[in-house]
Amino acid sequence: MTTEHGRRLRLGMVGGGHGAFIGAVHRTAARLDDCYELVAGALASTPERALESGRDILKPGARNYSTFEQMVLAESSREDRIDVVSIVTPNDAHHKVAKAFLQAGIHVICDKPLTTDVSQAHELERVAKERGRVFVVTYNYSGYPLVRQAREMVAAGDLGELRLVHVEYLQGWLTERLEDTDNKQARWRTDPARSGPGGCLGDIATHAFHLAGFVSGVTPERISARLDTFVPGRRLDDNVNIRMRYASGAQGTLWASQVAPGHENDLHLRIYGSRGSLSWRQEEPNRLRFTRHGEVPRLYTRAGPALGGAANHATRIPGGHPEGYLEAFAQLYKDAAALIHARNESLDPPATALLAPTVREGAAGVEFIAAAIDSHRADAEWTSLLAGDSR
Amino acid sequence: MTTEHGRRLRLGMVGGGHGAFIGAVHRTAARLDDCYELVAGALASTPERALESGRDILKPGARNYSTFEQMVLAESSREDRIDVVSIVTPNDAHHKVAKAFLQAGIHVICDKPLTTDVSQAHELERVAKERGRVFVVTYNYSGYPLVRQAREMVAAGDLGELRLVHVEYLQGWLTERLEDTDNKQARWRTDPARSGPGGCLGDIATHAFHLAGFVSGVTPERISARLDTFVPGRRLDDNVNIRMRYASGAQGTLWASQVAPGHENDLHLRIYGSRGSLSWRQEEPNRLRFTRHGEVPRLYTRAGPALGGAANHATRIPGGHPEGYLEAFAQLYKDAAALIHARNESLDPPATALLAPTVREGAAGVEFIAAAIDSHRADAEWTSLLAGDSR
Amino acid sequence: MTTEHGRRLRLGMVGGGHGAFIGAVHRTAARLDDCYELVAGALASTPERALESGRDILKPGARNYSTFEQMVLAESSREDRIDVVSIVTPNDAHHKVAKAFLQAGIHVICDKPLTTDVSQAHELERVAKERGRVFVVTYNYSGYPLVRQAREMVAAGDLGELRLVHVEYLQGWLTERLEDTDNKQARWRTDPARSGPGGCLGDIATHAFHLAGFVSGVTPERISARLDTFVPGRRLDDNVNIRMRYASGAQGTLWASQVAPGHENDLHLRIYGSRGSLSWRQEEPNRLRFTRHGEVPRLYTRAGPALGGAANHATRIPGGHPEGYLEAFAQLYKDAAALIHARNESLDPPATALLAPTVREGAAGVEFIAAAIDSHRADAEWTSLLAGDSR
Amino acid sequence: MTTEHGRRLRLGMVGGGHGAFIGAVHRTAARLDDCYELVAGALASTPERALESGRDILKPGARNYSTFEQMVLAESSREDRIDVVSIVTPNDAHHKVAKAFLQAGIHVICDKPLTTDVSQAHELERVAKERGRVFVVTYNYSGYPLVRQAREMVAAGDLGELRLVHVEYLQGWLTERLEDTDNKQARWRTDPARSGPGGCLGDIATHAFHLAGFVSGVTPERISARLDTFVPGRRLDDNVNIRMRYASGAQGTLWASQVAPGHENDLHLRIYGSRGSLSWRQEEPNRLRFTRHGEVPRLYTRAGPALGGAANHATRIPGGHPEGYLEAFAQLYKDAAALIHARNESLDPPATALLAPTVREGAAGVEFIAAAIDSHRADAEWTSLLAGDSR
Repeated sequence: MTTEHGRRLRLGMVGGGHGAFIGAVHRTAARLDDCYELVAGALASTPERALESGRDILKPGARNYSTFEQMVLAESSREDRIDVVSIVTPNDAHHKVAKAFLQAGIHVICDKPLTTDVSQAHELERVAKERGRVFVVTYNYSGYPLVRQAREMVAAGDLGELRLVHVEYLQGWLTERLEDTDNKQARWRTDPARSGPGGCLGDIATHAFHLAGFVSGVTPERISARLDTFVPGRRLDDNVNIRMRYASGAQGTLWASQVAPGHENDLHLRIYGSRGSLSWRQEEPNRLRFTRHGEVPRLYTRAGPALGGAANHATRIPGGHPEGYLEAFAQLYKDAAALIHARNESLDPPATALLAPTVREGAAGVEFIAAAIDSHRADAEWTSLLAGDSR
Repeated sequence: MTTEHGRRLRLGMVGGGHGAFIGAVHRTAARLDDCYELVAGALASTPERALESGRDILKPGARNYSTFEQMVLAESSREDRIDVVSIVTPNDAHHKVAKAFLQAGIHVICDKPLTTDVSQAHELERVAKERGRVFVVTYNYSGYPLVRQAREMVAAGDLGELRLVHVEYLQGWLTERLEDTDNKQARWRTDPARSGPGGCLGDIATHAFHLAGFVSGVTPERISARLDTFVPGRRLDDNVNIRMRYASGAQGTLWASQVAPGHENDLHLRIYGSRGSLSWRQEEPNRLRFTRHGEVPRLYTRAGPALGGAANHATRIPGGHPEGYLEAFAQLYKDAAALIHARNESLDPPATALLAPTVREGAAGVEFIAAAIDSHRADAEWTSLLAGDSR
Repeated sequence: MTTEHGRRLRLGMVGGGHGAFIGAVHRTAARLDDCYELVAGALASTPERALESGRDILKPGARNYSTFEQMVLAESSREDRIDVVSIVTPNDAHHKVAKAFLQAGIHVICDKPLTTDVSQAHELERVAKERGRVFVVTYNYSGYPLVRQAREMVAAGDLGELRLVHVEYLQGWLTERLEDTDNKQARWRTDPARSGPGGCLGDIATHAFHLAGFVSGVTPERISARLDTFVPGRRLDDNVNIRMRYASGAQGTLWASQVAPGHENDLHLRIYGSRGSLSWRQEEPNRLRFTRHGEVPRLYTRAGPALGGAANHATRIPGGHPEGYLEAFAQLYKDAAALIHARNESLDPPATALLAPTVREGAAGVEFIAAAIDSHRADAEWTSLLAGDSR
Repeated sequence: MTTEHGRRLRLGMVGGGHGAFIGAVHRTAARLDDCYELVAGALASTPERALESGRDILKPGARNYSTFEQMVLAESSREDRIDVVSIVTPNDAHHKVAKAFLQAGIHVICDKPLTTDVSQAHELERVAKERGRVFVVTYNYSGYPLVRQAREMVAAGDLGELRLVHVEYLQGWLTERLEDTDNKQARWRTDPARSGPGGCLGDIATHAFHLAGFVSGVTPERISARLDTFVPGRRLDDNVNIRMRYASGAQGTLWASQVAPGHENDLHLRIYGSRGSLSWRQEEPNRLRFTRHGEVPRLYTRAGPALGGAANHATRIPGGHPEGYLEAFAQLYKDAAALIHARNESLDPPATALLAPTVREGAAGVEFIAAAIDSHRADAEWTSLLAGDSR
């Protein structure tokens, strides 16, 4: 268990009111390692619901705002203003909220996908850089200790030259037309006005894409995407099949689906090189399988033997005491806190904290979505991931 | 994710300073569901180390005491005194600390084993009852959602008449003489002066015993115990083998070991009845295997289909997003909070919170340790679990 | 265990001499259920090696031929001539051998891929039909009981409308340039002159393709194939990535690799429909996972509860007593024997035996190889599987 | 795949007619590696059923006897008499049949438990020795390649000094009173007149006992046994719980059950030493888990990397192509053939073949049954395994 220390950062939250799954996740993650105190919020998109959610969720004494605009304004002028804002609204609001807080000099933690549009993503990149603010995008699966171990092993050459990357992210919850019920999650995640142009693509394929890049250390040059919508009447894709080509000659495949009954949240990454392979599965996150070609497979465990610094940094409790999704999510909050403290004090950030995904990875995810949609519309034509890049 | 609500309880902690694994676990667990604020502590057994740990661990403004006696005294006279104390010292101090706080009218959350001696355990039971205080003992594995599901299924008769209970709790970390190094955990856990008379028996076999009783709903009448010490020079047992007889005719076996290399924290419960069986494993806590005799095995998952109220109450996030050890531990803190609020307001506690292990289960664990040692000394003679019972 | 009965068929073998993995597999498979007696062979491609292999492998009294041509000629004129020939040569010889035996009125069991060329495959189809001979192609994975169970469940509509088929076949043995050593298997399987135009494609992707079709009951209309050769200097593909489109709108993916270290013979089929899913893995062939959408996953086991007729027909021993590769292979031999007996006696064959893959499935495999190569050469263009069909 | 060679031995069979599970297993096992030809049989215990079974099961030309006495007599006087007899009757007939064939100078392969009585077992040991005949007892789980690998690793000291042996053998098929139906297997296996004094004890606990000894290389000095009969009206035990003490100070536990729903044939062996551990499970026989203390677990696979000679000798096909129960069973037949050829030619037997369990191991199994029953009757008193030993 890491030692708790340092001043707790003052955290504000936009979105994440009643019925929002991910808002509660962010709050728990922020709390878990005790690096934050939630002191302000504008928790929903209409003033009444925002205030009502705030009354229930925020602690006594916290600032409960009816809109994020009001929140930016009020916080900007306070002595004890928030250090950082968490943005956990539906995707379409990320850009305007993040921009406003950045411009007020406030650090940002934002859910993914970063924006619904590449130019907005690039704008956030630019503004974050100009303002010198920390900007963490919650590709939370990168917070798992054994994911960081896998990254370290690839970087150390344990797999040899990379050849094949295969990442799957399978869910079954949208097998039927759940968006016609009162399921809030299903409704906004299948609504292009709130989710942006990607359904399964934006919701989970981006996670898979980030994870593959995070561990392999490389980004494909081009992708060929097929998007399917299997459930009649659904307005966005619910299944994604992507081929990826890397500059090195490596090849990749990404399969994401929300119509795969029998799977809950089955994100599974496998990487093969000239000397070995790795396999990691989110539903069993405390295990990592590594095989050197010609040797027997080895099962690494979280906090077990033979792990490197990155994994050990991201672990709290001994091996065999499972850590899960919330702990991995909390790791990004912990990393963000370290980055913010360093920035505030003009220090070099600790190397371990630099693993937290930044606005650049956030923008890369949006570029990925755009390229996948372009490719799909052109009958899976090979499409550069950098086509829309204006940096 | 459960909705956060209610006043946060003021929490004090005794023990759990620098280098204490379980102290940090308790603090994280207390924080996770936001039901507590840690406002006071006497974090180590010597005044200097206590104050030093407190300076690092407690928040600014929290009361940092040099001894628990001072803490009881000072808190008793405060308006904003702590509602509840967490006792996370080595086992030998549980009794005196718990008794002191109970007598001051403060609710108690205490680690297991409750005491190092049966009469002390019974005294705590009596005092808690007299003072009407909530007393939760952290048999934390009972906080897992699928453990509660298993309990509910047994109670509902899904397994028919119980026949066999088999529980294992295997670790390998004490395979060598780790207590000769500076490993703090190994040192106190193998030291009879601090651990009490049980080594592996008190440290993990008690967990296994509690889990088996919690899920099966029954306690054995008699046990036959063999305790081994495999590592030369070790002062306490490091391997435990127990047979259990139930009044119904059911039979049980309990095997706990800390010299089983290849296992980290492998607590595994299996129950067989005339109509079906259950299997649950702590290292994969989000799965529960259930087989009706003559049908194919079914894999229940946390937050998945077909679960009952107890499991759903104890779950925070959707299926496939693994919850782990800290979440299960936090569940006991959450249950304790509900019990304390109810007690403070003289209301009936919610049924779900009543699953939290009480001082009775704590005392039963101490009786179990005593009976196991008696049995072992009499060459595994069948020994009544109630032999020492003076209630 | 099935009851043994009926006259044992007289079996001849072409190929399969010293050092041939698959020859010994065929002989064991033929023996396992006692439906055959191996009475003749031309076991290698040169007369000396053929005779030498025959001396070691064939029983005393068996006819040991130096060439298959001599064997056809001699057997044709015998009273006790062979009923059926097994062809287990490298792929390039399948066509000429099979044609010669068919024309002599002898039934054929032939390894896959059927031929190295579509027109040859179609010719065999035609000749087999004209001569009315049984022709079984050893897509042996279709012999597993739970594969047949899966097929039956799909056909019964247990999965609803099919949406997604994903089949993987991963091996690691060709991760390095094994063909430069004296490994016989590696040498001929990477040699286009003996294997035909497909490397990994012909060797294992065809198995995956057959399995997917066998279980799903449908064949894709079009495929888009990418073939990779990762090992420098290798003359054939060693990794295959194929997208498949079905007439119904279902989508499929097939991934086969021989450069995936950490995998031995990892053929894994998953099928998803509007109401449920199935997953089966060759390395754990005695289990089949089935999930109805909205229910908990169920684990079917070979010879366990709830199985249908096809699975039970193909099983020999009780559940929990693992059957494996040789038993599945033997199933095709057993089915072939039933077909041959029925044909010889002009009876209707038993329905269960009709599951054995025929020359049609063999030809479909060759069409698949050809279409995949065409597609690959046209930069993964969607290619009809029936393009080269002249029937 | 091993090379086939050598004269096939002439095999006779006693028992194993219609409806006998194990008879067909023996015949298939004998056939699998082509070392035997079944030429004679007395397949049931009454003349009519014997002849009827023989007509269906034996090949044309084989000798079909009405009784084993007739068979011994007739075979003894033939030039081409059988080399070896397989005895697959219910347990009560093993002794008289084996003795008769041994006295006629015929080698014996006999199912377990060897006899229903210790003195009979010792007599067979003596007669086999006097007559110099090969006598293999089919503790078939010792035929699995990875079981032999495990044995070799223990012998090589890879686990250090042995501390703990835990073996389980769980089945669920007798959860209800199946012997009241027409299930032949359930009827004789729960009938003391045919099974002998052990139910679950003789049927499967003996297998577990043999396996533990085979792999660990040591036999316990004393055991403490508890036998349960959970199903009302059952005449023999259906659950067995045994503690074992080894001379070295190692401790063991053996749990066998036939009333454990959810298990099919779940024989699972785990061994722990001062330096590492092993785990092997019969239902997944192609995997062996090995952990060196302080290192990550390693998964050995059949025919995979890092195996020793014993495992490689007992494997037929490449890794990832599962071998199963019949192959392991066949290994004993193959070993027996090697032993018989060596004996017949007065040669030293190959070391690998010496792993096949002999009449000594068979007798040890009967001693184990007797000791377990004695111990159980004396309320689980520690009982010497050699108490009844008269050698």
